[in-house]
Amino acid sequence: MKNSFGHNLTVTLFGESHGEAIGVVIDGLAAGIALDLDYIKQRMAQRQAKGRISTQRHEPDEIKIVSGWFEGHTTGTPLTILIENTNTRSKDYEKTRYRLRPSHADYTAFAKYDGFQDFRGGGHFSGRLTAPIVAAGAIAQQILEQKGIYIGSHMLRCHKESDQSFAQEENKLKEQIFALNAKDFPVLDDEKGQTMRTVIEAAANEGDSVGGIIETAVIGLPAGIGEPFFDSIESVLSHLLFSVPAVKGVQFGLGFDFADYYGSQANDAISFKDGKVVTKTNHNGGINGGISNGMPILFQCVIKPTASIFKEQETIDYQSKQPVKLQIQGRHDPAILHRARVVIDSVTALGLLDLLCEQQAANCMRKEERA
Amino acid sequence: MKNSFGHNLTVTLFGESHGEAIGVVIDGLAAGIALDLDYIKQRMAQRQAKGRISTQRHEPDEIKIVSGWFEGHTTGTPLTILIENTNTRSKDYEKTRYRLRPSHADYTAFAKYDGFQDFRGGGHFSGRLTAPIVAAGAIAQQILEQKGIYIGSHMLRCHKESDQSFAQEENKLKEQIFALNAKDFPVLDDEKGQTMRTVIEAAANEGDSVGGIIETAVIGLPAGIGEPFFDSIESVLSHLLFSVPAVKGVQFGLGFDFADYYGSQANDAISFKDGKVVTKTNHNGGINGGISNGMPILFQCVIKPTASIFKEQETIDYQSKQPVKLQIQGRHDPAILHRARVVIDSVTALGLLDLLCEQQAANCMRKEERA
Amino acid sequence: MKNSFGHNLTVTLFGESHGEAIGVVIDGLAAGIALDLDYIKQRMAQRQAKGRISTQRHEPDEIKIVSGWFEGHTTGTPLTILIENTNTRSKDYEKTRYRLRPSHADYTAFAKYDGFQDFRGGGHFSGRLTAPIVAAGAIAQQILEQKGIYIGSHMLRCHKESDQSFAQEENKLKEQIFALNAKDFPVLDDEKGQTMRTVIEAAANEGDSVGGIIETAVIGLPAGIGEPFFDSIESVLSHLLFSVPAVKGVQFGLGFDFADYYGSQANDAISFKDGKVVTKTNHNGGINGGISNGMPILFQCVIKPTASIFKEQETIDYQSKQPVKLQIQGRHDPAILHRARVVIDSVTALGLLDLLCEQQAANCMRKEERA
Amino acid sequence: MKNSFGHNLTVTLFGESHGEAIGVVIDGLAAGIALDLDYIKQRMAQRQAKGRISTQRHEPDEIKIVSGWFEGHTTGTPLTILIENTNTRSKDYEKTRYRLRPSHADYTAFAKYDGFQDFRGGGHFSGRLTAPIVAAGAIAQQILEQKGIYIGSHMLRCHKESDQSFAQEENKLKEQIFALNAKDFPVLDDEKGQTMRTVIEAAANEGDSVGGIIETAVIGLPAGIGEPFFDSIESVLSHLLFSVPAVKGVQFGLGFDFADYYGSQANDAISFKDGKVVTKTNHNGGINGGISNGMPILFQCVIKPTASIFKEQETIDYQSKQPVKLQIQGRHDPAILHRARVVIDSVTALGLLDLLCEQQAANCMRKEERA
Repeated sequence: MKNSFGHNLTVTLFGESHGEAIGVVIDGLAAGIALDLDYIKQRMAQRQAKGRISTQRHEPDEIKIVSGWFEGHTTGTPLTILIENTNTRSKDYEKTRYRLRPSHADYTAFAKYDGFQDFRGGGHFSGRLTAPIVAAGAIAQQILEQKGIYIGSHMLRCHKESDQSFAQEENKLKEQIFALNAKDFPVLDDEKGQTMRTVIEAAANEGDSVGGIIETAVIGLPAGIGEPFFDSIESVLSHLLFSVPAVKGVQFGLGFDFADYYGSQANDAISFKDGKVVTKTNHNGGINGGISNGMPILFQCVIKPTASIFKEQETIDYQSKQPVKLQIQGRHDPAILHRARVVIDSVTALGLLDLLCEQQAANCMRKEERA
Repeated sequence: MKNSFGHNLTVTLFGESHGEAIGVVIDGLAAGIALDLDYIKQRMAQRQAKGRISTQRHEPDEIKIVSGWFEGHTTGTPLTILIENTNTRSKDYEKTRYRLRPSHADYTAFAKYDGFQDFRGGGHFSGRLTAPIVAAGAIAQQILEQKGIYIGSHMLRCHKESDQSFAQEENKLKEQIFALNAKDFPVLDDEKGQTMRTVIEAAANEGDSVGGIIETAVIGLPAGIGEPFFDSIESVLSHLLFSVPAVKGVQFGLGFDFADYYGSQANDAISFKDGKVVTKTNHNGGINGGISNGMPILFQCVIKPTASIFKEQETIDYQSKQPVKLQIQGRHDPAILHRARVVIDSVTALGLLDLLCEQQAANCMRKEERA
Repeated sequence: MKNSFGHNLTVTLFGESHGEAIGVVIDGLAAGIALDLDYIKQRMAQRQAKGRISTQRHEPDEIKIVSGWFEGHTTGTPLTILIENTNTRSKDYEKTRYRLRPSHADYTAFAKYDGFQDFRGGGHFSGRLTAPIVAAGAIAQQILEQKGIYIGSHMLRCHKESDQSFAQEENKLKEQIFALNAKDFPVLDDEKGQTMRTVIEAAANEGDSVGGIIETAVIGLPAGIGEPFFDSIESVLSHLLFSVPAVKGVQFGLGFDFADYYGSQANDAISFKDGKVVTKTNHNGGINGGISNGMPILFQCVIKPTASIFKEQETIDYQSKQPVKLQIQGRHDPAILHRARVVIDSVTALGLLDLLCEQQAANCMRKEERA
Repeated sequence: MKNSFGHNLTVTLFGESHGEAIGVVIDGLAAGIALDLDYIKQRMAQRQAKGRISTQRHEPDEIKIVSGWFEGHTTGTPLTILIENTNTRSKDYEKTRYRLRPSHADYTAFAKYDGFQDFRGGGHFSGRLTAPIVAAGAIAQQILEQKGIYIGSHMLRCHKESDQSFAQEENKLKEQIFALNAKDFPVLDDEKGQTMRTVIEAAANEGDSVGGIIETAVIGLPAGIGEPFFDSIESVLSHLLFSVPAVKGVQFGLGFDFADYYGSQANDAISFKDGKVVTKTNHNGGINGGISNGMPILFQCVIKPTASIFKEQETIDYQSKQPVKLQIQGRHDPAILHRARVVIDSVTALGLLDLLCEQQAANCMRKEERA
């Protein structure tokens, strides 16, 4: 299953950064969904590099739907999206084939594939592989939105600078999500955003890079979604989130701060409001026992600083096994945080739509189907 | 797949806290493995409640292997382990059937199962379901140990008290792992352990509970294990770790601290030592691009404070939808951190053994098989 | 996945003929289904050996539901059924451990498991493993019946004796299915059944065995069930049917007779009747392009003659590699055809219910759900 | 999983007959395999239509490997093959959009996809989808051949004409397989082949079509491959074989003829020859208990007569629900038997390679790995 994910909505990813094309096959879509292709393009554009705070490799990233799409609707058979690799300067990479870039997958690819990996630009490990994920995610996301489920993320932290927090009140939170999804640099407080840009540019000027924390909110997910073992919402989402390059930590609700709380402080008191079970706080991030409780789903991912930096680094040449000083050339991002946001949203949408289908699957067994 | 995990070594979990029995089916074990049943019993015992810092529900938790085991070896067919539920005082739970315990799965189970769930003692959501997981994990763990792969965990933090950190030097780390696996209260520094016990007892006296952070190290895992998309080591382990009740955050290497680092500080410089590629630091926790690099695998999980507390809490009665004051009765743990450790080890072993098999699977395609 | 089947309704089978117990875990059942346990028992009884035409090993085959069942309903969590092995005379088998029985799995088990297999009574390969399959299938079958989907099978041929064919008219066919499901010896024409019994008894008297052909009909399955690649109804059912020991051929509709037909003879002319698309003939057995067309599903399985016979056979001793004359002792069936029928029904029910759920899964993506 | 197959070597199929492209993603290939692209092209050519006995739609069917292939070797990441649809005369199909072709998937596609299916040329149900399957199969087949495992098929029957049978002696059988794989019209006896061609041409002249039976042999497969429940060789192969359009029956060894045999006649006597366990007859087609016994694997598939015929047929217009006389236009095959042969070989190769990997996967658990 390696490069596939999902039981009901199955996504299969393929391609290398400097190969012919990258792409994704999405199997399990219902027939007759009228997708908004502009929506997909907008999400793809948000993932793309822009300005001084990103890599100078610019590609059109044009998506080509080669199957599963007919007369403006999904057909119900596998929908395949291709993105051709056009702006590939493979020679940039030839010289450094055996020079293992620290904190990259260079060495692990050698260990795994015995030197047969497509090493150019990171090959299958390139962040570029997230482009088809975003295309697939944008499909899942618009299907969820038609059901009133909205996903939004912001840069809670960029290096040591923090954005404000998500609102607790659900209408306000919805507004924030809508606002974030319209922005290229996703922060709630745009002044803080300016400071973050300055931090990224300063790192870029030093030939260095920074990371940060993305916070995500999901509203409108009904209670009862997720499976106890082993397909809890947390399990399914973390599985997908950790497949996004550079994610090294995932926490739900209070996350690691739970260690500081007593049970009596951490527990979310329950009440009944407007015909709905709600909690007064949402320390559990909308999930109990792995299953949604109807409150907003809240989680955070840490994105490590981009591994490709221009500063000189110590490493070895894998062929000679000799130490070398590495000075990375080429085009790189001093931060990927702002671009990664849309990837986080995308895998979240894919995971939740799969779990919604999983809940739906068994419904056909009931005498009277549920409302 | 809900209650199954693993492509090659598939674990299927079943049972409810107060049903007839709980258990696990393990499919994919090689034939002819001479398991040490005492090893399994020891791990089961470490998961069990002991002393004032744990629940007063004591069960023998005797495992019964009902299939896949013959003349002292695995047969290669599914190995099934049953654990009967003996000490069940179901009446403790009858009265509170509709009283939703805060931060438990009570409400989400209603939302998901329409009231048909076995509510007694948390039913399928009970921490008791981790007992068969430990039995399965202890099998995986001893198979890994025969290959020189060792897993150990300690309580890095219990509420606000911290243990010392894992040693960086691998021989010293191995000693620490061995020492931890022999302890019931897994800390590196036993004096700190005493303080932690005091913290737990103090919470218990208040009818309250505490959580903390478990840190895990794996040594001996060869480089090249894990799949790029979507079965990275981080994806597979987090999927399993988040299925352990009370885990609300998972981080690898520096984890959330990566946000504070520049790329030049975070990157692990590479060198060659004793015929092996090594890194000078291990900020990435032994994983690059989702694949092991031969350094120790290091990660942390946060365990939220036990949701069951004796202090009075605000909630509702799900039947009447009216607010009620909840005073939980019965037998509960003021902390599960020390017991959860062995569950963390177990799912880690299951996930890594599955990934080892995944790497092995394709080997039959090569003309000359790899050493 | 080896011992599991099904994406939505997953069945995991375990156990050996002379081990502690055999059983099955069924995951994916909806919560709140009020199963009829007597229905399960009746199906189990029909699988059991009776009279001179069957083995003399008689077991109560009492099923024990150890999880997923509470207050008379499914809970929505894995439902586990255990059947203890009580009447095991293992000594019958000790002497012949290395004497490979022709056409049995004795040698292939040695080749696969290196001698670690539980050899007693065929171990995991025993026909006894079909008992939990029948229990699981009886659950699926009653869920289907509540939706108006009925499955029935008869012995179309027993050795060289033939039963009459299924009626083409659907009401008559439904009556036949109901009648068959009430019989222990499932034939449409009971006089033919008497001849068949005579054939089986004659073979038994010779220490020999016979096989035959089971024909199955399914009515009430709506059009549109099944997936084009690779989960056609034919693919899913044949996968399951060939897992039933002794099945060596499966054919749908005209099956192998299609070779004799011209396209113009084989094609089923289409018409419209009582608001429904129907075909004038049903040569395709209710399936086009792998998907149900609303006509009865019709297929046949061949059951080879029981491999265990009392007549002397040529084989080798696997330890010495020397030729030996084998005279099988113990208790065996001169025919299993009549007992296999209920296993065929059971796997059919499991496969079709899984495909119904698969069709249902994607429904949550539609703005307006389908009727 | 719908459009994916295989646990270890996973094949995902996509595309429609008249869409942009059709293709396949193959995940799980080992890195470093030096594939022979000419081998793939040759197999693709054998699947293509030729002469008067086939459709007049001719396409180059050029394969484009867009990922997983680098410097002449597999990379170990997903290998994706695209085949563009060039010779598409969609207008042929517009007029008959609602005219349900008998024995085609036209009606079942309406029932399943509510009219959103790409109806042109059968869309996703087109036999054209077997082209990427053949490309994938040709990769699997050459990997198997490097391990000494050979697959070959012949037209055992074309309508009422029969070819001679496979040789029983293994060296002779190997020669036959080699000869068949070099032929476009795969028969053992070329004179019989001439008669078969005449039969097909005669049917073509009448605007009619014929079917037949393909017989397949596999040699070199080691004993011990296949899983008892539910992944027997028979289960896995039949699952794949029934996904080939027009296959309506599959039988192993004696197949449906087993009904005529007594156990004492059907059982294959076992002996020991040249250091190997062998059977004197091979009635079971090389499989016992679902697992290979080292003898040649033998099975047969029936291919129904092509559903597209030029003779006038009775059907309905799905829009008006009125009866219509249908006169199919366009380009069609009077027989697909000779073209289907290579598809049968291909899915056989994919299934067996997957099972070989499955057997391999668990090997890493053993202290000393098996030879």
